[in-house]
Amino acid sequence: LNFSGEKGYKMRLEGFIQPYMETKRYTGTDDSELYNRFRMRRLRMQLSGSLADEKLSYRLRLDLSGTSEADLDEANSNILLDAYIRYSIDDNLSVTFGQKSTPTDNRELNINSQTLQLPERSRITSVFSTIREFGVFLDGTYRITPGGMYVRPAVAITNGDGQNAFKKDYGGLKYGGRLDFLPFGLFSNFGQFREADIVRERTPKLVVGMNYSYNDGVSSRRGRNSGSILYLNDRNEEELPDFIKLGVDFMFKYQGFSMLGEYVKGSAKVSKDITQRVRNDGSVSSGFEIDGQQHVANYIKNRMMLGEGYNIQAGYIFTNLISVDARYTHLRADKYSFMNNGTFYNRPNYYTIGVSKYLSRNYGAKIQASFTYVDAAPGSNDNAGNPIDGNEWVGRLILTIGF
Amino acid sequence: LNFSGEKGYKMRLEGFIQPYMETKRYTGTDDSELYNRFRMRRLRMQLSGSLADEKLSYRLRLDLSGTSEADLDEANSNILLDAYIRYSIDDNLSVTFGQKSTPTDNRELNINSQTLQLPERSRITSVFSTIREFGVFLDGTYRITPGGMYVRPAVAITNGDGQNAFKKDYGGLKYGGRLDFLPFGLFSNFGQFREADIVRERTPKLVVGMNYSYNDGVSSRRGRNSGSILYLNDRNEEELPDFIKLGVDFMFKYQGFSMLGEYVKGSAKVSKDITQRVRNDGSVSSGFEIDGQQHVANYIKNRMMLGEGYNIQAGYIFTNLISVDARYTHLRADKYSFMNNGTFYNRPNYYTIGVSKYLSRNYGAKIQASFTYVDAAPGSNDNAGNPIDGNEWVGRLILTIGF
Amino acid sequence: LNFSGEKGYKMRLEGFIQPYMETKRYTGTDDSELYNRFRMRRLRMQLSGSLADEKLSYRLRLDLSGTSEADLDEANSNILLDAYIRYSIDDNLSVTFGQKSTPTDNRELNINSQTLQLPERSRITSVFSTIREFGVFLDGTYRITPGGMYVRPAVAITNGDGQNAFKKDYGGLKYGGRLDFLPFGLFSNFGQFREADIVRERTPKLVVGMNYSYNDGVSSRRGRNSGSILYLNDRNEEELPDFIKLGVDFMFKYQGFSMLGEYVKGSAKVSKDITQRVRNDGSVSSGFEIDGQQHVANYIKNRMMLGEGYNIQAGYIFTNLISVDARYTHLRADKYSFMNNGTFYNRPNYYTIGVSKYLSRNYGAKIQASFTYVDAAPGSNDNAGNPIDGNEWVGRLILTIGF
Repeated sequence: LNFSGEKGYKMRLEGFIQPYMETKRYTGTDDSELYNRFRMRRLRMQLSGSLADEKLSYRLRLDLSGTSEADLDEANSNILLDAYIRYSIDDNLSVTFGQKSTPTDNRELNINSQTLQLPERSRITSVFSTIREFGVFLDGTYRITPGGMYVRPAVAITNGDGQNAFKKDYGGLKYGGRLDFLPFGLFSNFGQFREADIVRERTPKLVVGMNYSYNDGVSSRRGRNSGSILYLNDRNEEELPDFIKLGVDFMFKYQGFSMLGEYVKGSAKVSKDITQRVRNDGSVSSGFEIDGQQHVANYIKNRMMLGEGYNIQAGYIFTNLISVDARYTHLRADKYSFMNNGTFYNRPNYYTIGVSKYLSRNYGAKIQASFTYVDAAPGSNDNAGNPIDGNEWVGRLILTIGF
Repeated sequence: LNFSGEKGYKMRLEGFIQPYMETKRYTGTDDSELYNRFRMRRLRMQLSGSLADEKLSYRLRLDLSGTSEADLDEANSNILLDAYIRYSIDDNLSVTFGQKSTPTDNRELNINSQTLQLPERSRITSVFSTIREFGVFLDGTYRITPGGMYVRPAVAITNGDGQNAFKKDYGGLKYGGRLDFLPFGLFSNFGQFREADIVRERTPKLVVGMNYSYNDGVSSRRGRNSGSILYLNDRNEEELPDFIKLGVDFMFKYQGFSMLGEYVKGSAKVSKDITQRVRNDGSVSSGFEIDGQQHVANYIKNRMMLGEGYNIQAGYIFTNLISVDARYTHLRADKYSFMNNGTFYNRPNYYTIGVSKYLSRNYGAKIQASFTYVDAAPGSNDNAGNPIDGNEWVGRLILTIGF
Repeated sequence: LNFSGEKGYKMRLEGFIQPYMETKRYTGTDDSELYNRFRMRRLRMQLSGSLADEKLSYRLRLDLSGTSEADLDEANSNILLDAYIRYSIDDNLSVTFGQKSTPTDNRELNINSQTLQLPERSRITSVFSTIREFGVFLDGTYRITPGGMYVRPAVAITNGDGQNAFKKDYGGLKYGGRLDFLPFGLFSNFGQFREADIVRERTPKLVVGMNYSYNDGVSSRRGRNSGSILYLNDRNEEELPDFIKLGVDFMFKYQGFSMLGEYVKGSAKVSKDITQRVRNDGSVSSGFEIDGQQHVANYIKNRMMLGEGYNIQAGYIFTNLISVDARYTHLRADKYSFMNNGTFYNRPNYYTIGVSKYLSRNYGAKIQASFTYVDAAPGSNDNAGNPIDGNEWVGRLILTIGF
């Protein structure tokens, strides 16, 4: 829906609704029950626009469902998603101030939620992504050969505390960037930021990229939240570990076929000055016992998302707008890492197949189903904290309607 | 406000604001003070639309006031009210997936909030309704005689945990339905879902209906909330009571006169396997002492909305758009029922008279006042928990402006 | 953005986004670190409209940033700002019911947030204002001489508990008013409610006003919140102190120059019947020890905003739309007053200079920076509660884009 105001103002209102249903079953146990869950997965509205000269633009995106994007260990149900002001320096370069998704997350997080080829993003996103950050972003797009090779560099300097971290800024800033290389030209119709190849690219399109970020002082597992995990030095001053993330990824699309590959590695630098930790109730402890002995660095690492993982997925949309998709995700935790947590993680392999029916030649209305087989490592629990012996099946169903 | 987009999209934005004032006085006491309360009763915005072929439609309704519809023992101030996607199978039958009001609530809850003939809904609604649920809904409308008799069957399978219960789904599902019979044809201008007869039906219109629901495992007083009251069996597994609701109701309208009658009965089935209860702080107790002795079933029933009630109300809109309305509501609690709670309930009779001035021939702008005399049974308290000897007077004033 | 519906309805949608960055440095200490803070300062949307005859109008204003207007000791992050219905009795007089800013706050709070000449309002606003209240408001505008002198009287009767106080109404009501006198006629283009003189008034414009309010029973420091500070009498009934506020202020504008002056004094009347206080955890104490001795009135006063303050600021917008502004704010606390609190207040002098660049001849897009030198009295702390020896520098940067 587009509006044009007096004096050349332009405004655009969009949105979509995604009701969702999930059913889970544990194998290798006498519990044959199905665990159901209903919810409004996403309910988003977006307002965007530009001033008369189109140099200045803004975007405002809200989620009204009350559920968070990464439904996980660190939730954040604030309704504010994107809110930023962008200034286009020239046709190739723009600077953005405000909150938005960051180029230092894996590629799938730069893809719009209503264009996913499966009902959910992969676990790589759950484990490593910060989803949204507040700060200054530089984005460039440069053609480097007459034949149509492009590079897209991006730099982000943010507070490194995730979405809506508007109280105190714990730790220093986060510095990062991404370099994308597109050897065969830009994707059609913003296809780089949409997952399924519904436009059926006529020539092969590929983007290969890498990203790196250095978060100077994180107060949460991976820099998605603010102030949830704090440490002190001898003088009772805050002293926080640093979190480093490195990723390599690609996406390929051609005539209805699309393929996405991502690799991410998270590591930490723990300052030797840390001698105390702050408990949830605000009290302070100098006990850092882990595996039966006092070890500050390992204790701290055990609360962060350290390790690596990759995700590879592909799908094909038939001309009758039915799509068939598959995904394999593998996670490998460091010895001391929250990725070993039995409730949320500790599951090294995820195998998913999905089928989708698009009702028109865009992402506006579709129905999607998927089945995921989860290979749970020994020591995994269900959500209630009870150990599970076998593995898990998860079935998902999601409807999307956009406006 | 209607929009039409490219390619046949249609969208509609509506809303209304209701500032409200209430004053309460206790009789038969030396406390002659007036207890005032100001608030934004409702502040709603609704976005609805359909795709080009009108088979698929959606609705999104929000309340931004921060106050809940049933201002009572189980509040829920999430802003999300309705959010659903509907598919019209044919002209007579539709299937809906998402969150909306349920056909298994009493008739007044299927009536739009800005069209009420008195400032508030009756206490039947407060006591028994779940207000909104998430699930799958089937709605039919069939003409059964050429003369214009209609039946409107509806079936709902929901998670049975009330509005925005998007975390864990406690207990099983809720199954229910409603059958409405309209002997004299459909009401004019959606009049079945609007209370006062502002369109002045030219021929008598009547709807008579009954509804039934079986909520397999409730974790709250009546299935309006999720996880607020939990029980366990011997093996520390969740074991929840079932809640059954039965209702009969009618609405009649003719030339400015409207009448509404409702009867609801709530009952419970308590599993004999329940042996423990979960306290608010998460700890577990096997004490179920009530009336001086251990009795599991009675203890549990005493925390649920068990009993019956009826509400009868009528009004007339004069041609100068002034309306006069009256209501009598009667509640009869079971011996063990939360309806005996002295703070919120324990008041068997409510007598209300009201007067409204509509500013135009729709519900868009009006001012409404009412006085309610509440017959409080012995053992009732005021909100601060102090016992009251006599009865209560409540005066209400509400303004409505819609857009 | 304006809409016109069927039958003469009018509706207007507006909004603005303000990303913000702040950096703080303490002087006279070995801590040379810069304390940064990023946030979405304001993200507002407003819907307003009127019915066909323009007698009835409404306004609805939301803030979606999750941060509060006065980022201080008593925060309130509810998204609902304004919501009211207004009836224009005649061309000179209107009555409003609902929630809005109150005429009994200092002048700068009656000025729209996106038109401020500096990134933040002065500390006078932080200390004394209630920001928004719910109640009934009468507003008049009368021309008293043919030459164009005007008076604007305003009366407000509100619940006196600040924004979104929709639960219990603690204490009695708040009664207050304001009388503004405009000797040289009304400001151009609503300039009385906009700070910088972007329209460059062709003739000098001046408004001089005074305001007074009596808050009968406050349950917070200055009547901005509800129920945060409670006292009891001998019979365990609520007994609350009264808060009185008196202010005098003016604004002058002429050819790009604007000047604002404000004086506010807050005082209290503490009932002798108060004998107990309610702690945060709900328990009751009769200890009112202050300065080493039991003194009920002084103890209570020490938790209220008692004292006086003035703010004087001026600025000039050049014709190239660059503006230079300066402000001096002085606060003087009573001996017993929360204004002596070392974390939030206890800083008597604030000196600010700012520079702004407006991108067009309205307030729709601008970038603003300011530097404030804060003269901290002995006994001041930083936010973490550590004492600071010297003073503070605060740098601020804010962008605004409206639509």
